[in-house]
Amino acid sequence: MKKNSIDNLINAITKLPAIGKKSATRIALNMLGDRHGIMLPILKAIDEANKNIKECDICGNYDDTSPCHICCNETRDKKLITVIEGVSDLWVMESGGFFYGKYHVLGGVLSAIDGIGPEELRLDKLRQRIIDEGVVELIIATNATMEGETTAHYIISNCTDIEGLNITRLATGIPIGGEIEYLDEGTLATAYNSRRRV
Amino acid sequence: MKKNSIDNLINAITKLPAIGKKSATRIALNMLGDRHGIMLPILKAIDEANKNIKECDICGNYDDTSPCHICCNETRDKKLITVIEGVSDLWVMESGGFFYGKYHVLGGVLSAIDGIGPEELRLDKLRQRIIDEGVVELIIATNATMEGETTAHYIISNCTDIEGLNITRLATGIPIGGEIEYLDEGTLATAYNSRRRV
Repeated sequence: MKKNSIDNLINAITKLPAIGKKSATRIALNMLGDRHGIMLPILKAIDEANKNIKECDICGNYDDTSPCHICCNETRDKKLITVIEGVSDLWVMESGGFFYGKYHVLGGVLSAIDGIGPEELRLDKLRQRIIDEGVVELIIATNATMEGETTAHYIISNCTDIEGLNITRLATGIPIGGEIEYLDEGTLATAYNSRRRV
Repeated sequence: MKKNSIDNLINAITKLPAIGKKSATRIALNMLGDRHGIMLPILKAIDEANKNIKECDICGNYDDTSPCHICCNETRDKKLITVIEGVSDLWVMESGGFFYGKYHVLGGVLSAIDGIGPEELRLDKLRQRIIDEGVVELIIATNATMEGETTAHYIISNCTDIEGLNITRLATGIPIGGEIEYLDEGTLATAYNSRRRV
C-alpha cells in the first residue's frame, strides 16, 4: 500500500517529543475529526510561528521580535545577567516573576558525549556582552547535572578575569516542600555542606 | 504582555488529546529548536492532510480518495460488512489483516448524555447500503461498552427486517493472553455464559 497523507501525517507527528505511534494516530484522527476546531488552528499557529518567531540576537530567547521583549525592556537591569541552558528555563524563571535582570540562553550544555563544545554554545557572545554592557553580576543557573556543572565551571574560568564582575550560582539544597525521607543523597549532602547558622 | 506567536502555538497544541500546557510548551520548543527536522515536516504534513484527506462517501473511512482504497478494492467481499464506531477501529482491524470484507464507520455511538441520536451517525446510509449491495452478513463490532451495546441493539432492530441478511456480533470472552486472576467480573461472566463444548 502506498504512503498516503494519513501515513505522512502520523509519521510527522511521531517526530515530536514523547509521542509514539499510538499517540500520533490518536492525534491525527483527532485533527481529522475536527478540522475547524483543532486542525486548522494548529496549522495556522505553526505556520505563523514559523514565519514570525526569531531567536533573539542578544540573549537567545524566542520571540516575534529580535531583540526580544525582555532585552528591549528598559526597566530591567541590564547589569544583571542570568545564564540558562535553554529557552524553557527562561520561561520558568519569567513565570516566577522574581528576576528583574536580563538572560543569556546558552542553547545547550557542554557535552563530550554529544560532541558539544564551547563553539556550539553562545559563550563568546556572553563574554562580549558582559564586557560591552558593564555587567556587575553573572548568575549561573545551569542545571544541577554533570553537564550543567561542567558548563558552569567553564563559564566561571572563562569570565573570572573580567574586572568588576561578580559571578554567582543558584543555591542548591532541599527544595521547598521537599521531604527529607524522599530526597536523594546528593541533594542531602549538598544541603548539609551548605547549612546556614540561624 | 500581549499574546505572541509562541503563546498562540502553545495554545493551539493544547487542543490535542492528552496534551497539557507543559507538554505543549515542550513540543513548541522542540519544533522551534529544529525547524527543518521537525517544524516544517509537520507543517507540510498537516497542510497536505487537510487538503487531501477526505471522508469516504461509502464507508466513512479517511483516505486521499473517496471512495477509499478499501471500498475501491474489488478483491474484497462487498457482501460482508463490519460496522465499527470510529476510523481508529477500522485501522486496528486492517492491521490485523484477517478481514476480507468491507467496513462501515458509524462516526460515534448512540449516547443520550452527549445528545447523539441515530441521525448523528451514519445509520441510514448503512441500511441503504445493505439493501443496495445485497449484503449477506453484517458483523457488528461496536465497543463492549454501554453505548456500544445500545448502538448494536439499535442496528439489529433496524436491520432485522432486511431479507437474506445475517447479523452477527464479535465474540466476547477472555482476551488472548488474559489471566483469569486479573479479569473483571463482567468479562468472566460473559466467558462463562458463552462457554463451548470441547
